[in-house]
Amino acid sequence: MGIGLSVIGMKIVLIGAGGKLGTAVHTALAGRGHDVITVGRSGGDLRYDFADPAQTAELYRRVGRVDAVVSAAGGVPWKKITEMTAQDYQDAFRGKVLSQLELVRQGVAHVAERGSFTLITGVLAREPVLLGTAASMANGAVEAFVRAAAIEIAPQRVNAVSPSVFTESLDDYGDLFAGVPPVDLADVTRAYVRSVEGAQTGQVYVP
Amino acid sequence: MGIGLSVIGMKIVLIGAGGKLGTAVHTALAGRGHDVITVGRSGGDLRYDFADPAQTAELYRRVGRVDAVVSAAGGVPWKKITEMTAQDYQDAFRGKVLSQLELVRQGVAHVAERGSFTLITGVLAREPVLLGTAASMANGAVEAFVRAAAIEIAPQRVNAVSPSVFTESLDDYGDLFAGVPPVDLADVTRAYVRSVEGAQTGQVYVP
Repeated sequence: MGIGLSVIGMKIVLIGAGGKLGTAVHTALAGRGHDVITVGRSGGDLRYDFADPAQTAELYRRVGRVDAVVSAAGGVPWKKITEMTAQDYQDAFRGKVLSQLELVRQGVAHVAERGSFTLITGVLAREPVLLGTAASMANGAVEAFVRAAAIEIAPQRVNAVSPSVFTESLDDYGDLFAGVPPVDLADVTRAYVRSVEGAQTGQVYVP
Repeated sequence: MGIGLSVIGMKIVLIGAGGKLGTAVHTALAGRGHDVITVGRSGGDLRYDFADPAQTAELYRRVGRVDAVVSAAGGVPWKKITEMTAQDYQDAFRGKVLSQLELVRQGVAHVAERGSFTLITGVLAREPVLLGTAASMANGAVEAFVRAAAIEIAPQRVNAVSPSVFTESLDDYGDLFAGVPPVDLADVTRAYVRSVEGAQTGQVYVP
């Protein structure tokens, strides 16, 4: 590679490694020869809650220089708009938006010159479902941020992966996403690999 | 009209009436025969800061039943991502996202059966410029929320108006939006009229 970044053997920080998606992303990246440091609130190599910007700062101090930062985490409340509260929207912002923005903002000082950030959003940014106003808000926020951050942090890169409901999660979320085409986790993890090992930036990958 | 809502003489609450956009929207709506109640932090018929959800609640108690709620307000920090802080993104969320979400969430109980909400976003949801990560985030959040809220609150309606930089503001923002096609305020106010008097919902009008 003439661009100063080896495509195999990257040092990658994976946030939200304990979830269904995070586990699959971990397997995919480790299987391609990368050194993956897993981070979670309650499991993983390191325990941090990235909804707290101060813990993100501690995480970056701990891991040192990395080639890629990958997020597979971000919780939001699911309720009818009439049952939401202002605090619910604040929680969605903190849990899925600010958390991921801070990974990028703080990470700029810790990621390799041509390293990357890969954030998680979802289909609700484009196509709503009932109970999903907080999720849609969060996904739309992160996708627009990705486009804006990309032009500022180059040659560092930032992309989002924006999947539909996982085929593997239809038992849990199938009613909410009735009739919405699901996506296999294998296709979602492929989008992460594309973001981490590729050279594009400011993209929203829809696997 | 057979749909229970007269298109002229609506009672409309306009937030952010003191700004360049708000002034133009006020003129356009009043000129079409509507009864416009102007609301601002420091000017207008009523003084409320809609970045505070508690003041939005007071506003709705004060105005009673209305046909339409129109927002032309929402400030965000403009800085390089490396100069932003977590608090800056929180401020952008509170000032442009939560403020407008709360107008809708709380407003559902106060707006006529086929009444409407019209929120303000902007071109940065789609096309970024330097210093605009907070603005892009906020606009993307509100546009995705509009699509999601629309399917829950029907037959009440909610749309966004997503303009480029105003031709009338090029002296202030022209450098940030160098080469970006501007839009005349007259075209932007037309989008507000379309949202308020029309019947569509979940739309992002790009004037």
